[in-house]
Amino acid sequence: MPRAHGRPHPAVAAARSAVLAALSGTAPDDLVLAACSGGADSTALADALAFVAQAERRRAGAVVVDHGLQEGSAAVARRTGEALRALGLDPVEVVTVAVDPAGAGVEAAARAARYAALDAVADRLGARLVLLGHTRDDQAEQVLLGLARGSGARSLAGMPAARGRYRRPLLALGRDETRAACAAEDRTWWEDPMNDDPAFARVRARRALADLEADLGPGLAAALARSADLLRDDADHLEALAAEASATLGPPPWQEADLLDLPRAVRTRVWRSALVDAGAPAGQVSARHVDACDRLLTAWHGQGAVHAPGGVRVRRSGHRVSIDTAARVE
Amino acid sequence: MPRAHGRPHPAVAAARSAVLAALSGTAPDDLVLAACSGGADSTALADALAFVAQAERRRAGAVVVDHGLQEGSAAVARRTGEALRALGLDPVEVVTVAVDPAGAGVEAAARAARYAALDAVADRLGARLVLLGHTRDDQAEQVLLGLARGSGARSLAGMPAARGRYRRPLLALGRDETRAACAAEDRTWWEDPMNDDPAFARVRARRALADLEADLGPGLAAALARSADLLRDDADHLEALAAEASATLGPPPWQEADLLDLPRAVRTRVWRSALVDAGAPAGQVSARHVDACDRLLTAWHGQGAVHAPGGVRVRRSGHRVSIDTAARVE
Repeated sequence: MPRAHGRPHPAVAAARSAVLAALSGTAPDDLVLAACSGGADSTALADALAFVAQAERRRAGAVVVDHGLQEGSAAVARRTGEALRALGLDPVEVVTVAVDPAGAGVEAAARAARYAALDAVADRLGARLVLLGHTRDDQAEQVLLGLARGSGARSLAGMPAARGRYRRPLLALGRDETRAACAAEDRTWWEDPMNDDPAFARVRARRALADLEADLGPGLAAALARSADLLRDDADHLEALAAEASATLGPPPWQEADLLDLPRAVRTRVWRSALVDAGAPAGQVSARHVDACDRLLTAWHGQGAVHAPGGVRVRRSGHRVSIDTAARVE
Repeated sequence: MPRAHGRPHPAVAAARSAVLAALSGTAPDDLVLAACSGGADSTALADALAFVAQAERRRAGAVVVDHGLQEGSAAVARRTGEALRALGLDPVEVVTVAVDPAGAGVEAAARAARYAALDAVADRLGARLVLLGHTRDDQAEQVLLGLARGSGARSLAGMPAARGRYRRPLLALGRDETRAACAAEDRTWWEDPMNDDPAFARVRARRALADLEADLGPGLAAALARSADLLRDDADHLEALAAEASATLGPPPWQEADLLDLPRAVRTRVWRSALVDAGAPAGQVSARHVDACDRLLTAWHGQGAVHAPGGVRVRRSGHRVSIDTAARVE
């Protein structure tokens, strides 16, 4: 609830107007859900959504996902749900997911389980939008993790403000602002101890960002977020050009000359999508695989087949390159 | 000179083969110069060039630029020149430049004076190529400085391996390798005390890179350099598309609809080059100026003219945008 007297704190006002802007194009009886972990970012988000919904007589609820990764997580989720109901959000769902950390690691597994749960709840309740609490700092950390991968514009492009039914209204706010907004509105939030565990890439990225700001000056998170926006535009357009080029080329085999006619920025993306189309898992195709394929054209000296993930092989014979899938490696 | 017995150290071999590759396309009697500060990177470069020149009977010399910024710099430059002559490089020129730090700052002024001197010597001697000693670590630091500016792919694209007569053969080597190469060949090098002065952006970037490697793991410099390569391809192609689009549009004024037909990645580059063409200094046009111009199309609510550097104004009236230059601001 807003304070009874006076203007809202600037961070509260910023969160509310960002949420309001994110709802544009929806009708008052479209259900909008806030995904809330109980942390400061998503608590500020849910608080802003509750205010906007009340002011504009809109339907707004929330979803709390209990990942079950820590002792007491069920109690945190239950208390968070109660606090959200007290804000006037309705319905508020608390769902428990099973995270299987085998394979891609616990962070990726938790993320996959979380989005699956959010999708399931949104489908069941017929929600039009699901709001996520990522801030400018999360965006900057995402860019740093992309840098450490070294795999180009898309991995540096961070998180989009809108994708499918998901919206990230707080990408222009800093983490200091979501805390200030919670404090100004007397909301308590939960400090996740996993946010201090350097076993997690996200935590290391957070430390890296703090170190970078100390070295290169304040405003770095905003600069990283601005770079992400620009690189997302670039990646969108270059991927669209690559999709056109792939359609024109048709399925492989391809003639060397047809590929060499393409600018490198487009050709590397044609390679990437061809590898994925042939069965290579998208998350495992690296810049090195793409570069090895391209060297079949640009540094040809009779080298053997390029082995990409998922048993995909790319080989050149004469002036032709072909892509096939070997006996699948499990 | 190479060691009398046995194979060269791997770092020495890497530097030599990188220099040899950079000379491809030149003839033995084309003069090639190494720019050498006396530091480890450019000493390893000059040493590798001297070896390759002797082995391949090529003409190779060196240039030492004394920036006159520190006491004793003339003596360092003189000793460096003597060491280069002892390697068999000929001619070796030691030139003194005047650095005027007013305006853009001492780093930018030193860089401008250095390249002017290198160009003048190369012209006078009729040199075909000038080799520069930048390493993968320099490239990574350049990317970090670009990140701190937040101005998109070109500023993240780092330094090219080749531009005009300049070549950077050592971009695939780390700074640890150039030191190892110097040590293996018994070359002494000079440690510039300015490399530890945090007043310089380059020094802060070096610290930032070390902190990032500690936070995110080793291999970060290589990942940053790989990102730079990919983003350079992207920037090259998108700038070429923007140049085509600008030619099709013709000089401003422009119709709103013609601009909105362009994808954002192309349109922002059309804006940038239009501002520069109208007289805005390229180094002062930021992503914010470009974004303000684009909002005349995408977030039009009757706002006033956009004021860009150099007195350049962009304004919209009706469905037309025009660019003019006000009384110049000095």
